[in-house]
Amino acid sequence: MTNQTLILIQCDDAVGLVARIANTVARHTLNIVTMREYVDEVANRFYVRIVCAGKAENNEQLTDDLIAALPSGATVTVNPPQQKRLAILVTKEHHCLGDIIVRYFFNTLGAEVCCVIGNYDELRAFTERFDIPFHYADHEGKSKADFETEIADILESHQPDYLILAKFMRILSSDFVDRYRDRIINIHHSFLPAFVGASPYKQAHARGVKLIGATAHFVTGDLDEGPIIAQDIRPVNHSYTVRDMVRAGKEIEKSVLSKAIRLVIEDRVIITGNKTVVFE
Amino acid sequence: MTNQTLILIQCDDAVGLVARIANTVARHTLNIVTMREYVDEVANRFYVRIVCAGKAENNEQLTDDLIAALPSGATVTVNPPQQKRLAILVTKEHHCLGDIIVRYFFNTLGAEVCCVIGNYDELRAFTERFDIPFHYADHEGKSKADFETEIADILESHQPDYLILAKFMRILSSDFVDRYRDRIINIHHSFLPAFVGASPYKQAHARGVKLIGATAHFVTGDLDEGPIIAQDIRPVNHSYTVRDMVRAGKEIEKSVLSKAIRLVIEDRVIITGNKTVVFE
Amino acid sequence: MTNQTLILIQCDDAVGLVARIANTVARHTLNIVTMREYVDEVANRFYVRIVCAGKAENNEQLTDDLIAALPSGATVTVNPPQQKRLAILVTKEHHCLGDIIVRYFFNTLGAEVCCVIGNYDELRAFTERFDIPFHYADHEGKSKADFETEIADILESHQPDYLILAKFMRILSSDFVDRYRDRIINIHHSFLPAFVGASPYKQAHARGVKLIGATAHFVTGDLDEGPIIAQDIRPVNHSYTVRDMVRAGKEIEKSVLSKAIRLVIEDRVIITGNKTVVFE
Amino acid sequence: MTNQTLILIQCDDAVGLVARIANTVARHTLNIVTMREYVDEVANRFYVRIVCAGKAENNEQLTDDLIAALPSGATVTVNPPQQKRLAILVTKEHHCLGDIIVRYFFNTLGAEVCCVIGNYDELRAFTERFDIPFHYADHEGKSKADFETEIADILESHQPDYLILAKFMRILSSDFVDRYRDRIINIHHSFLPAFVGASPYKQAHARGVKLIGATAHFVTGDLDEGPIIAQDIRPVNHSYTVRDMVRAGKEIEKSVLSKAIRLVIEDRVIITGNKTVVFE
Repeated sequence: MTNQTLILIQCDDAVGLVARIANTVARHTLNIVTMREYVDEVANRFYVRIVCAGKAENNEQLTDDLIAALPSGATVTVNPPQQKRLAILVTKEHHCLGDIIVRYFFNTLGAEVCCVIGNYDELRAFTERFDIPFHYADHEGKSKADFETEIADILESHQPDYLILAKFMRILSSDFVDRYRDRIINIHHSFLPAFVGASPYKQAHARGVKLIGATAHFVTGDLDEGPIIAQDIRPVNHSYTVRDMVRAGKEIEKSVLSKAIRLVIEDRVIITGNKTVVFE
Repeated sequence: MTNQTLILIQCDDAVGLVARIANTVARHTLNIVTMREYVDEVANRFYVRIVCAGKAENNEQLTDDLIAALPSGATVTVNPPQQKRLAILVTKEHHCLGDIIVRYFFNTLGAEVCCVIGNYDELRAFTERFDIPFHYADHEGKSKADFETEIADILESHQPDYLILAKFMRILSSDFVDRYRDRIINIHHSFLPAFVGASPYKQAHARGVKLIGATAHFVTGDLDEGPIIAQDIRPVNHSYTVRDMVRAGKEIEKSVLSKAIRLVIEDRVIITGNKTVVFE
Repeated sequence: MTNQTLILIQCDDAVGLVARIANTVARHTLNIVTMREYVDEVANRFYVRIVCAGKAENNEQLTDDLIAALPSGATVTVNPPQQKRLAILVTKEHHCLGDIIVRYFFNTLGAEVCCVIGNYDELRAFTERFDIPFHYADHEGKSKADFETEIADILESHQPDYLILAKFMRILSSDFVDRYRDRIINIHHSFLPAFVGASPYKQAHARGVKLIGATAHFVTGDLDEGPIIAQDIRPVNHSYTVRDMVRAGKEIEKSVLSKAIRLVIEDRVIITGNKTVVFE
Repeated sequence: MTNQTLILIQCDDAVGLVARIANTVARHTLNIVTMREYVDEVANRFYVRIVCAGKAENNEQLTDDLIAALPSGATVTVNPPQQKRLAILVTKEHHCLGDIIVRYFFNTLGAEVCCVIGNYDELRAFTERFDIPFHYADHEGKSKADFETEIADILESHQPDYLILAKFMRILSSDFVDRYRDRIINIHHSFLPAFVGASPYKQAHARGVKLIGATAHFVTGDLDEGPIIAQDIRPVNHSYTVRDMVRAGKEIEKSVLSKAIRLVIEDRVIITGNKTVVFE
């Protein structure tokens, strides 16, 4: 992306938007390489992600010129920070964390893992092998408010762009979630909205489903109800015990979370109401 | 299957079951070609589907000998009827019916379509092109009981082995369902248990899911809660309108229902509690 | 599409193309609803598919204005004919033909089936049930040139836009193919380029693959080497005989061919060299 | 598996095999929990994988008794070593190695990684973070024979059960391969037999395929022609550059290799001719 300009826009739909945008971009002597747009005809809303060849000379000027060209209330982002900082929150399961850290170590994550926070200490040894700070924030023997303050303090010191709940098994309060609005990504181990809440594989086993899944979504105050970023499934059959489902499910969880992280840090995801527009 | 013997058994698990079965089969000079078994260790239950080379000289004797060799309460089926008779219930959508009838016409369904029953008359012309009886049973202006009696009378005259709800959009009463226990197969247009009930694609669209699915299941008195036979999904994205989802979903619905029918008529599905054991 | 304008463009890439196009479209008081574009940076080639709200008052004028605004050599298509005419060529297998004809009968194909041509007579009865002309063109006892002339004469009388080879098992000559350049779609029963040529399932079985597939592609003079439109696969295992693969494969063949037909008749496919750009 | 007995058998098919095996097992007071068998009717060959509850008192006696009960030439394995030792061979790409080592570190691999051998030194730092021996065997400036002797010497000192070629980009000689017959597993970055040999993604890109894949297989003297263990694919489209395909392909490569390793070390794979029987 070194010689490119990335532009994200959402605004009310109107006649001639593409022309207005393209003209503005052209005046800044940028050439559109890819332009992915989507019009929600029900909500009368326009979304676009544009990659231009060439670096904008002045991001602020380009932003201002675009806003001037668009319907009032438009949101325009030019060249969002490319190297996002991620704080990973975990409990005991290692598979998602392992996947993220290996990518980070080999510079294929596209983001920086600034810290790992665990409500158990199990994943410290692994994390520290990669010289990543691991913070143990025990949830026991304290109120949820205190627990969350502890986490918030740790986050304060690391200033992450996104919080990744990589099988973090505590439910966060609305207060906490609001503080990191649109910046918390969770992996839930079911194809939501099936099997909301605890023990989805037990629920799946009891129901006798023939496929299991995982869902990466932004976290809101409603448990497992936030905007979905990515989902995937794999087939199972009657012979799968709950334990077999858990094992098989981990493969999906880590690949779905990894995909969601990639989409978000490449600025391919726009949140709109309780949904996402994903420009893959 | 002309020179083969098919045996289905379910019973309590016990030591030496395979030996007892294999010895009994061998005494009837049959050679086991494939033997698919499953032990539910929690329920202590044993299930097996055996295909033998050779025709049993006496199905009743083989059945009796197997029952004698097994724990009390065993269910043994030897050579269930191969050419099942299907009654197809429809409303207005044609895609599942079309798929079934084309297979039937070309002798690749593996079953006989003895009649089609519609609560609308829309699909009569198509059905009758294939010389299959079409019965129009209007649900309007009469009680559910009367509507179901009308259907039951039609079924009585055709004596189907299975009722296939091929996008039949009326909810059947528990009374009706009980009369055809374990013999009614429905296709529901979501990956159950997500989006139970009406308008699953509308629900899916509102939730912003990234995949849609279909589920074929046996019908019980609880709506969309019966034993699942087969499920599949396909990816969607933000640009799908409800209408796009409906269109894309039809492709899954027809392939999942078709798969479920094949599994059932090939006697590969054993119902156990609210689940299925499927020997593919 | 009744109140929409569809525009397809390919041309050499250049600075400001989107702006030039958007401005031209805006001058014709059309509003861009969706715009899918692709730049092949290696070939320096630009492709775009635009759907506008509103009917262009004058297609020719819009075309001319776009050509004037674009680099020389641009190909511009405005509102291609929507109801394409398809000639279906078959041999003995019915699954793809059945799928196409059922869609056609229920007005969900999006195209007209103007005739079916078979080098065997097996599929006549099915076709004629739908009042579609069936032409039997026997390939035996005559030269390939004579056989193809016979087919060409039939096609001449029906004037199809596309020829669909729906498991048509004869290899067409380069001469014949050239006459219908970019207008012949074949379904090949393997995931090309694996298993080119005859008996791909036998080849797949001999190789012990763990998945089988199907490929829909435009036909060129090189057997099974034309631009690929769509592909899909499904898993198999050691227990599949060649016959099982054939049966399982038919499900993929018909869904892949059906998808390819939909993409082509919705003008979502642009051929470029030996590849396709597909705006799904 | 601590209180279980695993039995693998392959032999010529014959009447009553299951009975003979089941009786023998019962005489050893073992109860069959799962029994997966397969009869290759063309080759007249019988394969079975049996898990019994209970530990055989005497593995040798059970083996002998089974051989005595079976057609001459039977291969019987009772309780193969459970903790296999793996040597991982790599070049520069880290994704497969990373996945394997993370599983190993967290005791979910089901095998021991006894060493990593690289023909480049790139992956040393990562490997050594986990206290796993890394051996750098440079292939340059020496003959293939010398290079392979160097590797063989390293292997000699570690005594692995299997060699895992985790994107090891050197072609091994027949001599070397023969020394580790049926014990070398490779991941090839295409859905074989498509795109044998070098640069499969470049080949895939040139051909314009709509899906890319990966294949895990046992290595034989014929390049990329050995028995296939597992394969998977994912969809791509015209917008994928070779580089995009490489990136997307890595996700498949690591999951397919990981699956193949699991199947092999759980003794679920039987090699037969140039194919595998996989009891999942």
